[in-house]
Amino acid sequence: MTTAYEELETRFRRHSVLRGAVAVLHWDSAVMMPMGGANARSDQLAELALVCHEILTGAGLAELLDAAEGDAEGLDDWQRANLVEMRRRWLHANAVPAELVRALSEACSTCEVVWREARANDDFAAVRPYLEQVVRLTRESAEAKSEPLRCTPYDALLDIHDPGSRAAEVEPIFDELSNFLNGFIGEVVEAQRGEPSAAPPRGRFPVDAQRRLGEKLMRHLGFDFGHGRLDTSHHPFTGGVREDQRLTTRYNEHDFTSGLMAILHETGHALYEKGLPEKWRHQPVGASRGMSMHESQSLIVEMQACRSDAFIRCLAGLVRETFGGEGIEWQADNLIRVYRRVQPGLIRVDADEVTYPVHVVMRFHLERALIAGDLKVADLPDAWREGMRNCLGVQPNDDRDGCMQDIHWFSGGFGYFPTYTLGAIAAAQLFAAARAADAGVMPGLEKGDFEPLLSWLRVNVHECGSRYMPREILMRATGRSFDVEGFKTHLRTRYLK
Amino acid sequence: MTTAYEELETRFRRHSVLRGAVAVLHWDSAVMMPMGGANARSDQLAELALVCHEILTGAGLAELLDAAEGDAEGLDDWQRANLVEMRRRWLHANAVPAELVRALSEACSTCEVVWREARANDDFAAVRPYLEQVVRLTRESAEAKSEPLRCTPYDALLDIHDPGSRAAEVEPIFDELSNFLNGFIGEVVEAQRGEPSAAPPRGRFPVDAQRRLGEKLMRHLGFDFGHGRLDTSHHPFTGGVREDQRLTTRYNEHDFTSGLMAILHETGHALYEKGLPEKWRHQPVGASRGMSMHESQSLIVEMQACRSDAFIRCLAGLVRETFGGEGIEWQADNLIRVYRRVQPGLIRVDADEVTYPVHVVMRFHLERALIAGDLKVADLPDAWREGMRNCLGVQPNDDRDGCMQDIHWFSGGFGYFPTYTLGAIAAAQLFAAARAADAGVMPGLEKGDFEPLLSWLRVNVHECGSRYMPREILMRATGRSFDVEGFKTHLRTRYLK
Repeated sequence: MTTAYEELETRFRRHSVLRGAVAVLHWDSAVMMPMGGANARSDQLAELALVCHEILTGAGLAELLDAAEGDAEGLDDWQRANLVEMRRRWLHANAVPAELVRALSEACSTCEVVWREARANDDFAAVRPYLEQVVRLTRESAEAKSEPLRCTPYDALLDIHDPGSRAAEVEPIFDELSNFLNGFIGEVVEAQRGEPSAAPPRGRFPVDAQRRLGEKLMRHLGFDFGHGRLDTSHHPFTGGVREDQRLTTRYNEHDFTSGLMAILHETGHALYEKGLPEKWRHQPVGASRGMSMHESQSLIVEMQACRSDAFIRCLAGLVRETFGGEGIEWQADNLIRVYRRVQPGLIRVDADEVTYPVHVVMRFHLERALIAGDLKVADLPDAWREGMRNCLGVQPNDDRDGCMQDIHWFSGGFGYFPTYTLGAIAAAQLFAAARAADAGVMPGLEKGDFEPLLSWLRVNVHECGSRYMPREILMRATGRSFDVEGFKTHLRTRYLK
Repeated sequence: MTTAYEELETRFRRHSVLRGAVAVLHWDSAVMMPMGGANARSDQLAELALVCHEILTGAGLAELLDAAEGDAEGLDDWQRANLVEMRRRWLHANAVPAELVRALSEACSTCEVVWREARANDDFAAVRPYLEQVVRLTRESAEAKSEPLRCTPYDALLDIHDPGSRAAEVEPIFDELSNFLNGFIGEVVEAQRGEPSAAPPRGRFPVDAQRRLGEKLMRHLGFDFGHGRLDTSHHPFTGGVREDQRLTTRYNEHDFTSGLMAILHETGHALYEKGLPEKWRHQPVGASRGMSMHESQSLIVEMQACRSDAFIRCLAGLVRETFGGEGIEWQADNLIRVYRRVQPGLIRVDADEVTYPVHVVMRFHLERALIAGDLKVADLPDAWREGMRNCLGVQPNDDRDGCMQDIHWFSGGFGYFPTYTLGAIAAAQLFAAARAADAGVMPGLEKGDFEPLLSWLRVNVHECGSRYMPREILMRATGRSFDVEGFKTHLRTRYLK
């Protein structure tokens, strides 16, 4: 006879498989789909979202959870952790009526498509009503969740992307970091003024050659092209499913440096997915542990490993080989300066490691205000400009490089931005711990060998899946929860040696 | 209050939208997916097949159909036809247990993937057990349907692809055609011996240039790239959904003629889908009327229109322009001979218009024997060789160009092959009727203008959707059901002027 727990595993497996289909369709929307397919795709995604929602709200699921929880002594630790995650997902799903789920999914798909064109045309007015609808339905959904999850509506959004995360805990972390960066950015900019200028190699770098170099580095990192692809999209992302990972980047024919780092960043995400516990594939406990952990894995590759002196010395050789570059700007010392140049700018995804958190903290405050209703969508462009001026001393001339630069809000991703900076903090901690645990990590990077670092990450992060909460994973691996002090030390060491 | 009929429309709409998601995932499998993604995709497709199956077997659907049928006076003609189609689909779905649907879908996905590699390696033994499993489960499924549909198991397979089609009616049509072709092929080959030789232009034709020419012709035909793409795959097909049509072809760098015609063929399929009644989108009555009608629309474009003297004269200019060709082999007269050359060969998709039906009739007999259990999968390679020798006087040296050449059986498509030749017959009838109705059809083709032909097809075929059975559509449009005589007349006129 099937136990309640086994029946739960069957249902959650189905949910996971269908979410995989959704992931591939999302990738297709951003990478392959012609514009005219948007409405049909929006229908498909909405219908699939509803099917998934129905699995989590299906008849008897609550009773199965009650029964399995009441009979949990027979379960092992992993199964018990799986059950906890099942309950968490059930709570998220059952707080929201099916019609609202469908309406929100449709609104997000449509808004995302409109955003693509509005952004190209710098026409915020065109996307405004769609974003208003997304904000309204997101707020409604968050409010519906806040009671069963016993948190604020905004916390309910954080919890989707970063289990257990609460604004009241994020805010002091971000405040401490903001206070630090407020003076630090100026110090670094001042210090860099005294260094030789950091000019990226000039020339025309064909997309094809950039892609081939990216693919070579992905292979260095252990990415398997039998189980994935690299394509292009407006905004780099990692989609698809674990056995079929769809990475994207975007290329600039006049500067290869940022498209290349985007590839390394996305490969960090992909390696995390690949390293999740195979035994728990398609079960909640086998899934990645939310977006702050995910971002820690992309940033440990991009920021900690690939921007280290050790790795850039190795990279410089590959870059010269690929593009046939000669001269001083192709030397490792210059590339190190390029990849460490700190300069307040308008675009988050192009931001350096030091100013990046400022972009995030501003979005954290803006999206809290949008969800709380304290900021109207109509006032967003102005609030954005003001925020940029106050926090970084720069101001966009248009909304394309202002509040329309990121896909997140336009596709319904509220409560997501904080995970970038929580991930950066975690990455610094984890990298320090990996280096302390294995003296081979840095010598490996000098040769482009990521295996020592990845071995440590697999055991200490990837194979944990969702067995523990994010801060518990950090505690076990590094002895501390999210630790701003470690991140500050990293920044000081790298930028003010 | 919602009527039973309205509730049925809601449920069938959902089914259609999810089938659209499946279509995109199928396209991705053949065009984009890395090999290592096959198992995960197979899981996704199986799970989606099950969800779709559950909609058609869901609680209360039988009662809703009974109620709507009992109260059909309030419905208009289209609604009533919609109800008939709903019942037909319900019959197909409810005859087969959910577990068998899932097993068959998984077996087909897996077998298709194995076939891709087995075919490349000419290794029938590698795919044999997978094909055996597909045949076994297909037979089981067909047997389960034969009673409720009141037909033989093989007829139940025909009925999936070609509603109302029965082997007992197809067989005399195919027998008559076989008897005719038996002598006719020899006569044509003999007659062509006396003509100047038909050599396709020689050279190296970059894939990029071939694709651009294909896209230009697609635009001529009215294909909208805002609602579709052209890519490459092993076997050309038209996938995706109506608002987002994904066409594929395959290119030969040494001969552009076949890849180009494949594109025109697939565009015929796409135009049919595009012309279906918008008002009945996502309802069964708004769907295309099975694969013989679908094939009639691809063949009326490829064989009737695009192989006419009128169009090839226009095409010759475009071809010269694209590839910079000069000399006698680039002239229209030579291209006409190339596109009309009759030569018994091994490969169905490369076959000329005259020998093509022979390939189909052989497959019709073989697949009937496979499903009946009179032919074992293990004996298929020999039976294939013997069939080719007897019917066309040619014999493959390997299974790659023998029984492994087509994807159909390996992906579960039994009962599909006959629709190619039924479609060819219908295409000849419809083209004759269109020319009789509109004197502008042929002058249009001379200028590469397909609008007169398409206007007629839209009214007489496309806009019918599934309002009538295939033979009724033909009766209304041409005054006859499937008419071998008209096809024979077409072949005689074109090949033995």
